Amino acid sequence: MNILYDERVDGALPKVDKAALLNELRECLPDLDILHSEEDLKPYECDGLSAYRTTPMLVVLPERLEQVERLLKLCHQRRVPVVARGAGTGLSGGALPLEQGILLVMARFNHILEVNPAGRFARVQPGVRNLAISQAAAPFDLYYAPDPSSQIACSIGGNVAENAGGVHCLKYGLTVHNLLKVDILTVEGERLTLGSDALDSPGFDLLALFTGSEGMLGVVTEVTVKLLPKPQVAKVLLAAFDSVEKAGRAVGDIIAAGIIPGGLEMMDNLAIRAAEDFIHAGYPVDAEAILLCELDGVEADVQDDCERVRQVLETAGATEVRLARDEAERVRFWAGRKNAFPAVGRISPDYYCMDGTIPRRELPGVLRGITDLSAEYGLRVANVFHAGDGNMHPLILFDANQPGELERAEALGGKILELCVAVGGSITGEHGVGREKINQMCAQFNADELTIFHGVKAAFDPTGLLNPGKNIPTLHRCAEFGAMHVHMGQLPFPELERF
Amino acid sequence: MNILYDERVDGALPKVDKAALLNELRECLPDLDILHSEEDLKPYECDGLSAYRTTPMLVVLPERLEQVERLLKLCHQRRVPVVARGAGTGLSGGALPLEQGILLVMARFNHILEVNPAGRFARVQPGVRNLAISQAAAPFDLYYAPDPSSQIACSIGGNVAENAGGVHCLKYGLTVHNLLKVDILTVEGERLTLGSDALDSPGFDLLALFTGSEGMLGVVTEVTVKLLPKPQVAKVLLAAFDSVEKAGRAVGDIIAAGIIPGGLEMMDNLAIRAAEDFIHAGYPVDAEAILLCELDGVEADVQDDCERVRQVLETAGATEVRLARDEAERVRFWAGRKNAFPAVGRISPDYYCMDGTIPRRELPGVLRGITDLSAEYGLRVANVFHAGDGNMHPLILFDANQPGELERAEALGGKILELCVAVGGSITGEHGVGREKINQMCAQFNADELTIFHGVKAAFDPTGLLNPGKNIPTLHRCAEFGAMHVHMGQLPFPELERF
Repeated sequence: MNILYDERVDGALPKVDKAALLNELRECLPDLDILHSEEDLKPYECDGLSAYRTTPMLVVLPERLEQVERLLKLCHQRRVPVVARGAGTGLSGGALPLEQGILLVMARFNHILEVNPAGRFARVQPGVRNLAISQAAAPFDLYYAPDPSSQIACSIGGNVAENAGGVHCLKYGLTVHNLLKVDILTVEGERLTLGSDALDSPGFDLLALFTGSEGMLGVVTEVTVKLLPKPQVAKVLLAAFDSVEKAGRAVGDIIAAGIIPGGLEMMDNLAIRAAEDFIHAGYPVDAEAILLCELDGVEADVQDDCERVRQVLETAGATEVRLARDEAERVRFWAGRKNAFPAVGRISPDYYCMDGTIPRRELPGVLRGITDLSAEYGLRVANVFHAGDGNMHPLILFDANQPGELERAEALGGKILELCVAVGGSITGEHGVGREKINQMCAQFNADELTIFHGVKAAFDPTGLLNPGKNIPTLHRCAEFGAMHVHMGQLPFPELERF
Repeated sequence: MNILYDERVDGALPKVDKAALLNELRECLPDLDILHSEEDLKPYECDGLSAYRTTPMLVVLPERLEQVERLLKLCHQRRVPVVARGAGTGLSGGALPLEQGILLVMARFNHILEVNPAGRFARVQPGVRNLAISQAAAPFDLYYAPDPSSQIACSIGGNVAENAGGVHCLKYGLTVHNLLKVDILTVEGERLTLGSDALDSPGFDLLALFTGSEGMLGVVTEVTVKLLPKPQVAKVLLAAFDSVEKAGRAVGDIIAAGIIPGGLEMMDNLAIRAAEDFIHAGYPVDAEAILLCELDGVEADVQDDCERVRQVLETAGATEVRLARDEAERVRFWAGRKNAFPAVGRISPDYYCMDGTIPRRELPGVLRGITDLSAEYGLRVANVFHAGDGNMHPLILFDANQPGELERAEALGGKILELCVAVGGSITGEHGVGREKINQMCAQFNADELTIFHGVKAAFDPTGLLNPGKNIPTLHRCAEFGAMHVHMGQLPFPELERF
């Protein structure tokens, strides 16, 4: 689909003379790595959402904080937009570059600065990979809890920018719940510390505000994460159901029974078959749905919970409940789940991964709604998702070479997200808004709410140079998208439209 | 000390004609309860921080949302400042009225709208008392976790405004971690919903930003709180130490052992003796410090943790470790702790309750520092606090009738807070900034940070009518307080000074 970056955003900022900027950068920052040729820039044209591509004007790869500081100051003076990115694994185009902007790659800031077992925290640079933190903490029997599926590759700076989740966030929270402190550079290149080493911080909670702000408020330069003790034991139950709705209802029943599983995941028949073909996890391929329920903690507690969850599952109508016999089977059960996306990729030329969140109790109804929509649009949908926290990932299967299928997939995706909003949910769970869902934000929020968002943005970045065109739509965009009310031809706060 | 409200704040807003406003209110809102006579206003001159008193211009006691809506619209038109308050139990003067403003009392919004056991949430009006939520949820074996000491009286709207904590927030989080959704009215009387019924919400995290914003961003009209299953078992260990530093070190050791107690509280000898005299809890009165460590969860787990905590305590040098024999003794152990403040009130004519937070590992050093400062200022300090999360509450004992003692107590309090900031902590834990600590905010934050705070404030309340003069100091105030750098006689963003 190769959608070029919305020119209205670039248009509102002064045109940049690439050659002049390159010269100036080379002069001010002689030891900064800068990519500028077409072939060098090409690999950076997209992040994990490859449907959207834009060649950045320049890519810079700093190694030292001072370089980033001076770069930001210079860009601020020259009114050059900046998009920061880490590993580029994001799935919503949050790090999509700008034709008229600099792509600031923070990947070389990849040092673990401190692992403090007594204080139960780690201080790391933003380019450190998520999994590397847990590996560094492992000798102390500690780990960093949020575990997005991309954890082997994604970096902590991006996790902060997108407030990343993962399989275990039902019990252990999102990124925002696992942070102590974030050091940032403002758009003007000033150093700022959000949060503190203590539990709480006075004034407005800027750390929470910043987490998930998708690069619009500042550039992450250091992250202090909380570390947790590794659970002594983890066990997994697999339950099969003859309908997705029954499985959906069982999810609510487990939580209502007062149990918080370490992970509670659901897959429907299409996903089960695809994963089983690929990984041979031992899934029951005739089941309409399975639940994977991980219980972790101390031995006796886990034992007890396993028994209670088994009872809940059986009462909820499970046709089969299996406890992974040993660690090897437990790992196999998870391997099937964790590889479900590539597994689906094997049975369809293309798929479109959605990300919406709904209140848990709405699961049965929304799953039924997705089945109906799937039939209406004539496209298969595989469901594999974080059921426990209501974070759905419907995968819409299509063939981009069949005329009209891509458009139908996009339309179906939009309908699914609208369904999520209609039941009190939201248009994103853990993947963020980025460039992808900027129009859906108009459906989720009204003009008053968007005006507050723009005001908050202006408090950090009054000139709108940081990652413009992502996350928060302009009111004009929403007016054009048709989801917003324009009063007497006037939008409130027209001066904010430059974002 | 009866400090009148800082006239600079009132001065920046137009003078209000009380009689004219009263007439207008009576006309627009004929069924609204309005207090206006000196004797009716008197009881509202302070909140829980009675050292600061101001008689409000008018007090209004609405019962319906539409009344609050119309009131805010009218105040916005007339540029009349509004201070919202709930039960008025706050300890930092966050609900201190304005001489030239309306005090909006939300206490009559005291209905529990919904307790949803399947969804594990409750929807309540802002004037509902904290404890009443747990009482309403009790038939479903659920409860609302944050439990400030004032929970019998304080209301949830105020809990949201101050991001209240409590004995159990080490394990179960602060108010912000236990909210799903907050409905507010903006300064313009527009309805807005922050958060959602789902786990995450796209765009900036306005729910987290709003929580703890001390009435500066909007008026809470409804709160959807998360409910948790009641722990099956709770046990309490009491450990005695011959030095406060050893006790402080033991706190870190427990956490480092991978145990998260439901509560972990510390009292020093002065507090122990006062509490024992008052409550007869059975505390060892010769101990220099005691720790109370509550472990909750399922039976087997708690058993196991008790054993491990006992070992850690003994290794840390406890002179005695006692497990409460039965529920009666457990309740007695807590009764001593929960009544420690009034108990100290019995041994000193006056006391000044501080509230600072430090990284847990700094406990031994800071306790030593407080002992030194106590000697230097010649005033006794009782320590009784949430040790597990580093939230200290030193009580400075003084006699206001002795010339100079109040001033010495205030000076000592300031020094203790500076000590907290110096070790990476903060000037407030759970009591908020309010009016009390507005000057200390100048020490905690620099001009760049304060400018961002003001920008965020302006996004919600550009005319600065909501609770002016609390929480976030003006840059001028900080310049006068001497903690801030004024460049060339100029402060950044002078137009923001009206807050």
